[in-house]
Amino acid sequence: VASAALERDLGSVLPPESIVLEGTAAYLGDETEGRGLHGRADAVVLPGSADEVAHVLAWCYEHDVPLVPRGGGTGFAGGAVPLDGGVVVGLERLAGIRAFEPLLWRICVEAGMTTATVRRLARENGLLFPPDPGAAEQSQIGGNIATNAGGPHTFKYGTTGSWVTGLEVVVPPGEIVSVGGSIRKDVAGYDLKSLVVGSEGTLGIVTAAWLRLIPAPEATFPVAAFYAATHEGCAAIERVLGNGLVAAALEYLDRTTLKAAGSSFPAAVPSEAAFVVIAEADGSRSEADGLRDDLLDVLADGAVAVHAPTEPSTIAELWRWREGVSIAVTAQRGGKVSEDIVVPLDRLGEAIEETLAIGARHGLPACSFGHAGDGNLHSTFLVAPDDEDALAEAALAAEELFALAVRLGGSISGEHGVGWVKRGQLARQWGPRALELHAEIKRAFDPKGLLNPGKKLATHEAARI
Amino acid sequence: VASAALERDLGSVLPPESIVLEGTAAYLGDETEGRGLHGRADAVVLPGSADEVAHVLAWCYEHDVPLVPRGGGTGFAGGAVPLDGGVVVGLERLAGIRAFEPLLWRICVEAGMTTATVRRLARENGLLFPPDPGAAEQSQIGGNIATNAGGPHTFKYGTTGSWVTGLEVVVPPGEIVSVGGSIRKDVAGYDLKSLVVGSEGTLGIVTAAWLRLIPAPEATFPVAAFYAATHEGCAAIERVLGNGLVAAALEYLDRTTLKAAGSSFPAAVPSEAAFVVIAEADGSRSEADGLRDDLLDVLADGAVAVHAPTEPSTIAELWRWREGVSIAVTAQRGGKVSEDIVVPLDRLGEAIEETLAIGARHGLPACSFGHAGDGNLHSTFLVAPDDEDALAEAALAAEELFALAVRLGGSISGEHGVGWVKRGQLARQWGPRALELHAEIKRAFDPKGLLNPGKKLATHEAARI
Repeated sequence: VASAALERDLGSVLPPESIVLEGTAAYLGDETEGRGLHGRADAVVLPGSADEVAHVLAWCYEHDVPLVPRGGGTGFAGGAVPLDGGVVVGLERLAGIRAFEPLLWRICVEAGMTTATVRRLARENGLLFPPDPGAAEQSQIGGNIATNAGGPHTFKYGTTGSWVTGLEVVVPPGEIVSVGGSIRKDVAGYDLKSLVVGSEGTLGIVTAAWLRLIPAPEATFPVAAFYAATHEGCAAIERVLGNGLVAAALEYLDRTTLKAAGSSFPAAVPSEAAFVVIAEADGSRSEADGLRDDLLDVLADGAVAVHAPTEPSTIAELWRWREGVSIAVTAQRGGKVSEDIVVPLDRLGEAIEETLAIGARHGLPACSFGHAGDGNLHSTFLVAPDDEDALAEAALAAEELFALAVRLGGSISGEHGVGWVKRGQLARQWGPRALELHAEIKRAFDPKGLLNPGKKLATHEAARI
Repeated sequence: VASAALERDLGSVLPPESIVLEGTAAYLGDETEGRGLHGRADAVVLPGSADEVAHVLAWCYEHDVPLVPRGGGTGFAGGAVPLDGGVVVGLERLAGIRAFEPLLWRICVEAGMTTATVRRLARENGLLFPPDPGAAEQSQIGGNIATNAGGPHTFKYGTTGSWVTGLEVVVPPGEIVSVGGSIRKDVAGYDLKSLVVGSEGTLGIVTAAWLRLIPAPEATFPVAAFYAATHEGCAAIERVLGNGLVAAALEYLDRTTLKAAGSSFPAAVPSEAAFVVIAEADGSRSEADGLRDDLLDVLADGAVAVHAPTEPSTIAELWRWREGVSIAVTAQRGGKVSEDIVVPLDRLGEAIEETLAIGARHGLPACSFGHAGDGNLHSTFLVAPDDEDALAEAALAAEELFALAVRLGGSISGEHGVGWVKRGQLARQWGPRALELHAEIKRAFDPKGLLNPGKKLATHEAARI
């Protein structure tokens, strides 16, 4: 419920069309799975320019009012949810193209442009914007930058941040700061750009970004291989690297995930299948052809079946299926608690097995799937969204997952970020001085602590304040 | 000249073999061209472990003594030179392999390992560590990380920082901090890793790094094309991108550079040549072959000659020649003042012409060469090292270069960093709030300002304090 007084006051710095009076509920929740996270805001604004974002931030800073920046709201960590009032700053109206020079492989877009639009603009000009997080139709490039979003093709192409060469960001107490630009190298200052990337709206509000693009690969061929056991699948994944094959993507699904999603798989799934690996070859036609052959060789060893479509329609079908896996898993019980832990690649099998063991200890069906090549699991516990006991157990199980990731030399988050859901968990993986630096960086950018309060907190102590 | 008292005191925290008593002069200068930058230290230490680095830093912090971290000393910006006393911390003894898992494409090495050794270890295992800054035999990986070093292959593969997945760094007041590791994704905390990369030893002392590697390309084929005018060469460079050719490297040399270095070019240089472009095709044998053909097509248009060796020996000869260009340029007058400005690719021709015009205004012969695809020039003024008047003019000319880079939407440094030489120049390209954040980040890491004092200063005000 928005506060009429606050809306009136914001009217002094924003035009009426930038203040949302009806339908604010759409700006209060996010996709946090199985946890139904919805917040409360005093006002929702949709600035139409970076200047307007600066005006709102300055006004909020002057009046000690918290701000919550918000992209497409497709995050899984509660990062865009206003926990307790303040002003939600939605970026959707700030969605223009500032510059597009396809012949020079670069584009400058505003933060509210959807990821799908960025990718489409590139594609229509023979180029590729490689980051491919889920929900590309809703998620916005600003949110992708704020979370340093990944996706299946991160294995070859890196996360969103790797493609950002410049940022325009509004920082407290209300300044528009620009770093980098349409240049491809810059070592003049400390890397403020990378510091803002992945900061989840707690250091500043991204309003525009210069992005690098590359020529689109001429061909892409996926190869899906089924195995009868996790350890055989994991061995196959390691063989891809061991044989020097630079796959564009290297994904996996475990037995329970396959059971949940297998009925819609675009080919027959063998009954003994307990693990599937999906690798992709890309490049020029001949390069992709050759790499596909190599992937087939390496993945067929020990596989019970292989599905390797070569037609655009059947290739698209396979990836569409992969994109639907998360929803199919959710459908098992209506909800899920899923964490995006990362482990060194050689610990992937152990992390997959341990996910099941942790679930068993808490009486929860468990499964995992994700970006195998990057050691990035979506370790998942299936819960009914109204089952309070199961949700409580899942929260405990998630804590064990975080401990597991850190014990194996990994990270509590590979792509979803800390948001509200993983607050305090960074303390498991960083020492005291690093945590102190984390807090001091926050203070340097946001001395009043008004930017996305309660999010990306490194320690539970910070969360209690 | 070292101070005997300080050496004695350091003996309380370091073993005798870690304190240099003879030959300290080798640790006081760097390659800063034409400016003969040499400093003065109170002591030089060569710690044998990260713990020893932490002990030295803690001791210095307790006693308010400045520290200057030092790698191979091959920088061009005075970044590793002790300006006025303190303790030089050389990393050369910290040069071990912590872990090497070639089948998983990763290695963890200590900071003092030379870049050439890292590259050789990778190569011997069928892998590539792509960053290839000059002076690889002397420069150390820790220094490459501290400067986020680039090189010809940065165009396709990115700078050193792109290959760092984890860092061990000693920060004030004397803690060993570890972030990341052998994992390929991590969004749990603010990106401290990227903040330390390129910080030139002013935030912490890198002691070890986890590096990503990739399978070595099967083949690499360079194509060198000569043009009669700068604008024709620049048009050819843009055509490489416009035709969607992902060259591994895309270099250029202008007329004067070619004149200085051309006599040792491994083929005939046409008399009308005023510009040369060197592009490289890499990949599988067939991919590199195909890309070479495409590069030949695109670069031959308007060229007066093309040299495209295909034998390993003649290919190596061409790159060896390219590596020697900087020395050949220096040899013209015995010294040079060279700045590594960056501009958007479509402003490259303008920056090349302006470099000459700036030189002419200051009565200095000028030239440029560098990483064309990245818009990264080495804009150079030729001076005799003992010609004080010319050096003074060159300093003024360099100021104009920095202004030019910023006016064209670029950066004052693409790979050498700020060091001491470019102190205060960041203020041209960043606004007040960004500069303030730069200073606050420094304060958060190094509240006493003892780490590499006088280096990477963003403003002239800071330089005066």
